[in-house]
Amino acid sequence: MTDEMEVLFEKLSAFYEERKYADLRILLLDMEPTDIAAFMEENLDDKDQIRFFRLLPKELASDVFVEIDSDTQEHLIKSFSDTELKAVIDDMFLDDTVDIIEEMPANVVKRILATSTAENRKQLNELLEYPDDSAGSIMTTEFVALSADMTVKDAFDKIRKTGINSETIYTCYVTDGKKHLIGVVTVKKLLLAQMTDIIRDVMDDAPISVETLEDKEDVAMKLSKYDFLALPVVDKEGCIVGIVTVDDAVDVLQEEATEDIQKMAAILPNEKPYLKQSTGNIWKARIPWLLLLMVSATFTSMILSGYENKLALLPTGAILYAFVPMLMDTAGNAGGQSSVTVIRALALNEIEFKDIFQIIWKELRVSILLALTVAAVCFAKLMLIDRLYNNFEWNVAAIVSGVLFITIVMAKLVGCILPLIAKKCKLDPAVVASPFITTIVDALSLIIYCSIAIALL
Amino acid sequence: MTDEMEVLFEKLSAFYEERKYADLRILLLDMEPTDIAAFMEENLDDKDQIRFFRLLPKELASDVFVEIDSDTQEHLIKSFSDTELKAVIDDMFLDDTVDIIEEMPANVVKRILATSTAENRKQLNELLEYPDDSAGSIMTTEFVALSADMTVKDAFDKIRKTGINSETIYTCYVTDGKKHLIGVVTVKKLLLAQMTDIIRDVMDDAPISVETLEDKEDVAMKLSKYDFLALPVVDKEGCIVGIVTVDDAVDVLQEEATEDIQKMAAILPNEKPYLKQSTGNIWKARIPWLLLLMVSATFTSMILSGYENKLALLPTGAILYAFVPMLMDTAGNAGGQSSVTVIRALALNEIEFKDIFQIIWKELRVSILLALTVAAVCFAKLMLIDRLYNNFEWNVAAIVSGVLFITIVMAKLVGCILPLIAKKCKLDPAVVASPFITTIVDALSLIIYCSIAIALL
Repeated sequence: MTDEMEVLFEKLSAFYEERKYADLRILLLDMEPTDIAAFMEENLDDKDQIRFFRLLPKELASDVFVEIDSDTQEHLIKSFSDTELKAVIDDMFLDDTVDIIEEMPANVVKRILATSTAENRKQLNELLEYPDDSAGSIMTTEFVALSADMTVKDAFDKIRKTGINSETIYTCYVTDGKKHLIGVVTVKKLLLAQMTDIIRDVMDDAPISVETLEDKEDVAMKLSKYDFLALPVVDKEGCIVGIVTVDDAVDVLQEEATEDIQKMAAILPNEKPYLKQSTGNIWKARIPWLLLLMVSATFTSMILSGYENKLALLPTGAILYAFVPMLMDTAGNAGGQSSVTVIRALALNEIEFKDIFQIIWKELRVSILLALTVAAVCFAKLMLIDRLYNNFEWNVAAIVSGVLFITIVMAKLVGCILPLIAKKCKLDPAVVASPFITTIVDALSLIIYCSIAIALL
Repeated sequence: MTDEMEVLFEKLSAFYEERKYADLRILLLDMEPTDIAAFMEENLDDKDQIRFFRLLPKELASDVFVEIDSDTQEHLIKSFSDTELKAVIDDMFLDDTVDIIEEMPANVVKRILATSTAENRKQLNELLEYPDDSAGSIMTTEFVALSADMTVKDAFDKIRKTGINSETIYTCYVTDGKKHLIGVVTVKKLLLAQMTDIIRDVMDDAPISVETLEDKEDVAMKLSKYDFLALPVVDKEGCIVGIVTVDDAVDVLQEEATEDIQKMAAILPNEKPYLKQSTGNIWKARIPWLLLLMVSATFTSMILSGYENKLALLPTGAILYAFVPMLMDTAGNAGGQSSVTVIRALALNEIEFKDIFQIIWKELRVSILLALTVAAVCFAKLMLIDRLYNNFEWNVAAIVSGVLFITIVMAKLVGCILPLIAKKCKLDPAVVASPFITTIVDALSLIIYCSIAIALL
């Protein structure tokens, strides 16, 4: 938090405690809703939160409510009278109401729906039915619709009339009598046109749209690719049913990046902020992969045990054991570099499965260069440093470095191919990432190491 | 690429090859610039790219040029006459020109600056001086400035006059005679106000702004937090010098997520798309950490060698070796889960350094639960599965599981504390992430394992 904000929060606290409500309101009117929400969460207890919320200027109440975390929202709703709840809900955009409803227990949802107008209730129920990851689930049904034969002046009148209840007015959607999306026009274009111009002549008549069931991540990527402020969502008949705005798209992109990062770190994705997650939830998100990977490491133990008798016969057996962690870690790091690069490039739509041969060719060249460098440095290190505390000849160093070379190339190829195959099989590339690849690469490295060592020594 | 887009691209190719330029233009006018750029990159060779570019409708040329990758941009500029270059550059927003200049070799930069108007050249030079990661480097100087005593009608006239050259007209900035930022007003508010209203009365007079040298990631996070379409950038005197628009903020957030992912995977951050990176560049981005981690694994070899003589005396020595990879991998995974969670939460401003005790307490409870589960499953696995191919008693299984318990708790604590300390020391938390923590955790696990085994067996 900035110092400025801290000073502001202290002032708010002081006015609130001294019951200087007029001064408090003046401060609040100049603040952004999200900052007011942060103040309430950080500085007030349950009882004060509801008292403070009732002091909010009416025009701010809904905006602040939307920004509060869901536990506090639930607690506030439970303290609200029906009239208060209705005032807050009616002032909210429908997509925000949907977000809130999705976090609330059934009895609270019932109350919210009961206090909504019949029209809103119908739309809410429709929005709630879209699958969690779809365009429909993040869209709002409140937008400005124009018809093609309006003049620009008519359009402005319509915007003035419906604008206050629309999430964005800056992109208006042109529909025919049956709600088919036939064009799009920005307020910028309208402002630069003549008042007597006809919408048909100023609109862009090949609007880019998405379908209700499209993946919300694809929708967000599309919006960002075209630098739009909103994207229209159409049903199978091409009728516009809602819009997705850029602020929601940004949230989706951030969430998806977080999810990918979690998956790469062997955590089940979880949308809640870290400090809000319960111990049990964190445990649940982390235990499956931790267990699976621990059990799958049985392979490495089996491999090591399998070669044990033969390795024990070698005079350098124990010395060879000492380099196993280094070999495995380096192979894991090398594979991780490639897999993470490919996974991120897939997420950003930079590459597709059809690029697989180009990618393998690229990784092969890079991996040979990398493997040469690392193996050379490793050989030097073994001869100059490791021999200070261990007793072995150059042939051991050569074998270790040689195996390192092979495992790096192998790890990089596995690392780049697996995510691509996952994508092709419609699995999530991020899930097969680092942790899974590490296990495969570990097992392969051990086999290569032990068999080469036994063959040559 | 969607099927629809593929069909469109084939049509474009056909029209271009059959020299049906009128039909081509009609298609192009309905397309988004970024799609046209993609077509040029994927379907045309160097010579055709310049020919095709000259066929573009004049109003599209600059928009398409901005979307093309920098190698093609360079090649196009080199083929342009001075008049062509001037036409393209003059039509571009200044922040896009800056982005292009930053990727071009010196002689091309010279030509771009030479063809710019004197006014633009001055502004370009100023923009180019801002550090790479600052708000100044991503802002544009083209915005709508209003004065407080204008009427709403005056404001609309000003927007109509300067709007076409502004990157966004939807948020207008109110300044005093000395360019101090004193307010902000959205076009939505203007449209809903009376034409005779005075700007002073409709504007929001506590605008949120950022300073020119603020980190661009913080700027993007701020814009996303407040759901704004643009943020004003002010200098130290509070004078507005530019704005950052939401489309650029989205790009920054995506880049930063990619960078963090790269750093966590032990890769030096690299902004270029994967397929555009040369083999040499990829090698340069990956080799430093790969080498450093390989060399630092010397510790694990030293530790294993150090305990070697004592372990060799144990009847179960070789068996104990077999579980080293499993122990190290599990510890690495456990530490990675915590470090990645903390790093992402730091990046999203969900936590700060001052939350360190709350975080440690949370991770401690989670880690004990996780460690108990994993150790119990491990004990069962050792007794039921591993004894099928290896000969050991329950006391070995108990020691391995016990050590697993300790290392998981230890790894999770190291994993959550290190990124927080890095943040406090103004280092990049993502850099100390998985790879570095793995090395530390590996070494500690080995020491714990070997010393406990020797002490108890």
